[in-house]
Amino acid sequence: MTRIDNGVDAALLAQVHQLYGLQSHLIDGGSARAWAETFTPDGEFCSPSYPAPVSGTDNLEAFAGRFYSGAHDADEVHRHVVTNVAVDRIDDDTLRVRAYLQIVATARAGDSRLVRFTTIDDRIVRHGDTWLVDRRTVARDDA
Amino acid sequence: MTRIDNGVDAALLAQVHQLYGLQSHLIDGGSARAWAETFTPDGEFCSPSYPAPVSGTDNLEAFAGRFYSGAHDADEVHRHVVTNVAVDRIDDDTLRVRAYLQIVATARAGDSRLVRFTTIDDRIVRHGDTWLVDRRTVARDDA
Amino acid sequence: MTRIDNGVDAALLAQVHQLYGLQSHLIDGGSARAWAETFTPDGEFCSPSYPAPVSGTDNLEAFAGRFYSGAHDADEVHRHVVTNVAVDRIDDDTLRVRAYLQIVATARAGDSRLVRFTTIDDRIVRHGDTWLVDRRTVARDDA
Repeated sequence: MTRIDNGVDAALLAQVHQLYGLQSHLIDGGSARAWAETFTPDGEFCSPSYPAPVSGTDNLEAFAGRFYSGAHDADEVHRHVVTNVAVDRIDDDTLRVRAYLQIVATARAGDSRLVRFTTIDDRIVRHGDTWLVDRRTVARDDA
Repeated sequence: MTRIDNGVDAALLAQVHQLYGLQSHLIDGGSARAWAETFTPDGEFCSPSYPAPVSGTDNLEAFAGRFYSGAHDADEVHRHVVTNVAVDRIDDDTLRVRAYLQIVATARAGDSRLVRFTTIDDRIVRHGDTWLVDRRTVARDDA
Repeated sequence: MTRIDNGVDAALLAQVHQLYGLQSHLIDGGSARAWAETFTPDGEFCSPSYPAPVSGTDNLEAFAGRFYSGAHDADEVHRHVVTNVAVDRIDDDTLRVRAYLQIVATARAGDSRLVRFTTIDDRIVRHGDTWLVDRRTVARDDA
C-alpha cells in the first residue's frame, strides 16, 4: 500500500496549492518582483534552459523580468502550466514538492503551442507563517 | 515576501477546488443546466470568443448547450482544461479566482489539438452554504 | 444551484489531491510497484487502449513497468497530465473521482506532443487510514 497523504494535512496542502496556483500568474503576468518573493531571500532557481543557477531575490526578479519581456518582444504570451502537484513532508519546516510544468506559447492572432515539457522538484521551507521556495530544480523531458 | 495563502483557509479552498474541478465535466459532458447553476441566478459570463456577455441561468444553460452541441455536430469532443487556480479573498463573502483554461478538441479517430489558451478571472460569492460564480471574465492569449 | 462540495471536506479532499498528484510521478518515473500500490490489492484498471482490464497488484505493476519501458525504448518520456479532479462522496468509505488525463510524449532533443486525451472515472475506497483506487475506468476522447 502506498500512503498517499505523506504526512501533509489539509491546511498545509492548501498553502502549497495556493503557492503553485499563484506563481505562474505572477511570472506570466509580468509581476517579476512578486514572483521572486515566492522564493526565500537567498532562494535558488536551477534550470538546464539557462546557463547558470539564479539565486537571491534581485537576480530572481531580473530573471522573471527577462522571461516576460522576451515573450512580449516576440509578440507572444508565454504560460507556465502547473499540474500534478505532489507534496512530501521532509520535516516540520521542510517540504519536497514535485510538479509537471509545461510552457505554452501563443502568438498574437496565432495558434497556441506546447513549447516544452519540464518537471520541477522543489525544496519548500517554512518562513514565518507562510512557505517559500528555497530551491527549485527544473528538468527538461527533451534532455 | 509574497504571502501565499491570501487569507484562504483549507475548508474554503477545498470548496473552490471542487467547483473548478467540477465545472468542466458539466459543460463538456452536456450537463448544461448543472453548469449554469454553478453561477449565481444572475451570474454573468463575459468572453471575447462570443459577441455579448451571457447572463442569468437560462441564458447560461442555452450557451452551455450550444457549446456541447457544436462540438457534437463537428464529431469532436471539446474539453475545458483548468489549471493554476489561484484564490484571493476579497471579503467574507467574495473571492477572486484566477485560472488558466485551455480548450482541447479531439476528433473521432483523430488527433487532439490545443484550440485556444485563455485565462479566467472570476468573482465568486457565498450563496447559502456554497460558493457560486457571480461574474466570469475570459481573456484570450491570442488577442 | 449546483452544490459544489459534494459532501467532501477539506481533509478528505487533501488526501485525494495528494493521491492524484502523486500517481503520475510514480508511473511516469518508473516506480511501477508504488504506482500499483495506489490501487487496492485487487484493484482494477480498465482502458480501451489495452486489450483487457488489468487487476491485482502484480499485474498492475507489470502493466506500469511496460508503460515505462515502452517509452524508454522509444527514447521518449511519457507523462500523465492530470487536471480537473472532481470528487463525489458516495458513502463513508467510497468516493467517485473524475479527472481529465492527457498523455504527453517528448522525444530526446525533440518536440513535445499531446498523444491522447482521456477521462478517468474512478471508484476510490477507504483502506485503513488512506484511500486507494478500487477501479479505474479510462475513456478516450477519440473513441
